[in-house]
Amino acid sequence: MAVPRRTSRDIRSESRLDVLHAVLSAGETTRNEITRSTGLSPATVATVVGELISEGIVAETKLTAGRVGRPTATLVMNAARGRVVGIDVAETYVRAVMFDAALNQVASAEEPRDEHDLDPASVVESIGRVLDNVLAEGGVTRDAVLGVGVALPGLVQGASGVSVVVPHWTWHKVDLERLRERVGLPLSIDNPLKVIATAELWLGRGRYFSSMVTINLGTGVGAGIVLEGRILRGATNSAGEWGHSLLVLDGRECRCGRHGCVEAYVGAPGIQQTLREIEPDHPLADLALQRDFILSMAEAADGPEPDPAVQETIARTARYLGSALADLVAVINPELVTLTGWTTWALGEHLLAAARERLVEQAPGRSAHDLRLEVSTVRGNSVATGVAIIALERFLSDAGLLTSRVPIAL
Amino acid sequence: MAVPRRTSRDIRSESRLDVLHAVLSAGETTRNEITRSTGLSPATVATVVGELISEGIVAETKLTAGRVGRPTATLVMNAARGRVVGIDVAETYVRAVMFDAALNQVASAEEPRDEHDLDPASVVESIGRVLDNVLAEGGVTRDAVLGVGVALPGLVQGASGVSVVVPHWTWHKVDLERLRERVGLPLSIDNPLKVIATAELWLGRGRYFSSMVTINLGTGVGAGIVLEGRILRGATNSAGEWGHSLLVLDGRECRCGRHGCVEAYVGAPGIQQTLREIEPDHPLADLALQRDFILSMAEAADGPEPDPAVQETIARTARYLGSALADLVAVINPELVTLTGWTTWALGEHLLAAARERLVEQAPGRSAHDLRLEVSTVRGNSVATGVAIIALERFLSDAGLLTSRVPIAL
Repeated sequence: MAVPRRTSRDIRSESRLDVLHAVLSAGETTRNEITRSTGLSPATVATVVGELISEGIVAETKLTAGRVGRPTATLVMNAARGRVVGIDVAETYVRAVMFDAALNQVASAEEPRDEHDLDPASVVESIGRVLDNVLAEGGVTRDAVLGVGVALPGLVQGASGVSVVVPHWTWHKVDLERLRERVGLPLSIDNPLKVIATAELWLGRGRYFSSMVTINLGTGVGAGIVLEGRILRGATNSAGEWGHSLLVLDGRECRCGRHGCVEAYVGAPGIQQTLREIEPDHPLADLALQRDFILSMAEAADGPEPDPAVQETIARTARYLGSALADLVAVINPELVTLTGWTTWALGEHLLAAARERLVEQAPGRSAHDLRLEVSTVRGNSVATGVAIIALERFLSDAGLLTSRVPIAL
Repeated sequence: MAVPRRTSRDIRSESRLDVLHAVLSAGETTRNEITRSTGLSPATVATVVGELISEGIVAETKLTAGRVGRPTATLVMNAARGRVVGIDVAETYVRAVMFDAALNQVASAEEPRDEHDLDPASVVESIGRVLDNVLAEGGVTRDAVLGVGVALPGLVQGASGVSVVVPHWTWHKVDLERLRERVGLPLSIDNPLKVIATAELWLGRGRYFSSMVTINLGTGVGAGIVLEGRILRGATNSAGEWGHSLLVLDGRECRCGRHGCVEAYVGAPGIQQTLREIEPDHPLADLALQRDFILSMAEAADGPEPDPAVQETIARTARYLGSALADLVAVINPELVTLTGWTTWALGEHLLAAARERLVEQAPGRSAHDLRLEVSTVRGNSVATGVAIIALERFLSDAGLLTSRVPIAL
């Protein structure tokens, strides 16, 4: 594949994204403030704002009288432009979150999934059901929705086209057709790691750093990588599969079939295995559902008399996590690493300090000395949020405002 | 650090690089051919070629009569514009290579270094001596030289400025001043991993792939990463320090002081340690100099009756290498991985097939199925070549033809 040529059209597209991000993060702003915060010229800002207003994405709300000269128009995202829905398909649940066009969350719906039910038809039906439910919850019909994004693990793009290879599931094109039919709305599908990177770029700190990595901690673990304001996808859309890089050569068996992967140590089932190694008969060692396990771990660690086996499990997990993060820092050398995902929300505070200490010890040279390691500022379900943003990007791209940065969305 | 804004000036700079690369790789070409191969507009090509000719970088050699219309001018790199020198400072030798401005190698000089002598003053003197020798060898004086590049391991850039931290050596600003004085020519200094990536981008395959990684195998090991035609430097210029990512948690002690690094297994001393583990009394197990050891390994493996301990050492090294490459593929997901460095030249053919097999087994999903793993097409010393190119880039940048892509060269 040749290196894509960068054109002046891409630069215009990026200016539009910069302005959108400036309006989003400010809440309320003005053309002058956008000029200052983006570094774009006043003429470019005026043009871009005009385009975004004429597409109904940005709205002028009121005129504020300045000290001198004409009154200044206040700009906001036009929340009323429509809705977007993001759906996070995880192994343990399917969750839909509806946003207005200003990316405020307006409704959500979730159903648990039996993590042992791998039937693709039931997944499609699950997605359809939570979508119907979130629309009902938000009190809108399909014609109010600009687009739906679905995050599916394992979406890959190869020389022979796009396909979805979910670990353990058997997805085929026909199921995607069925999904498209069941959704009945403009549909974008992407990989969770690209999706959390998108959320960081739009709503988190990705815009302010020339290189950042966001780590998803859940059943699986992985990294979303943002370099100079762009998401690293890789040749087959599988960049960031840090969860399946080696932590221990010939180590624990991973559910991917290989041995010693990071995920086998810091994914939720890996953490449970660590507890089992420490105290095989511990009451939490055999909890059947991962989320119950992680929440119970947090509870046991938070109590007035913390459980020693739980403490030791957390300490070992932090050491594994810090070592594995150091590998990522060795290769990418980012300015910022953020943590997200449901294990982070439950155990992040317990893991962070020890993981940071290990990371600084293990990363080469000074590469981690100035590195920031933080819990992500994108709150809520960043997978659902990120893929809703991709649905919005798709809408803007179809309106001719963005050059396509969603090459593999189906 | 904010994300650097991309400007139309950058696009012009990239157009100039594209045209330069097109002339370089074609040897002899025409404006029409450049238009076809770069995808730039004829007007842009005409403008850029004009600029490069007026700076004496590109020359028109002759007119070729076409079938119709006016005769066509043939374009070549203007080799006579001046010389650039690249100096590879390794732990076991210092090598200088002189190129003309068309990047043809015209002279070289080398002196071995005692890998146990860590005195920085002796390194400066060594660099000065090989520079003097390569000038003498090429029959030119300093005024014929456009610039000198020096590749030093451990060059870092932090919030507090640029410094050189060579493992085991103690470099300080004062030594850099001394180096600058001793060289007495426009001097660029960069890290070997950024330098081999630059060589791949100018002379190798980096221009033709949207993502590639080039692996340096020598005393140390590391990765040069090229994404969409740009070199990944990272926050502190230490991206690509894959040699110090983990292969085995709590594994062999690495000379960086940590345990289980990739380098401790596939760096030359690591390969020797593997042999020592297989057969402690093997005659090659105690060879004092690494390059002697690697060359002797190649000899023993090439013979009519290959030495079984050597065979086993190579098999284990290939397995280590393939596993470690799979980690890099998991994170970066490149289209192409190339191998370079003196261990590659000696043992690459012995390692490649088994390393590839292991890589495909170990990389997540399908990320390695279409991946190419090859010995680099940049022949000779790609560190010296790459840093000579950086010296040429610096010259072009000072002439106003390129926006600075050499942010940390001193």
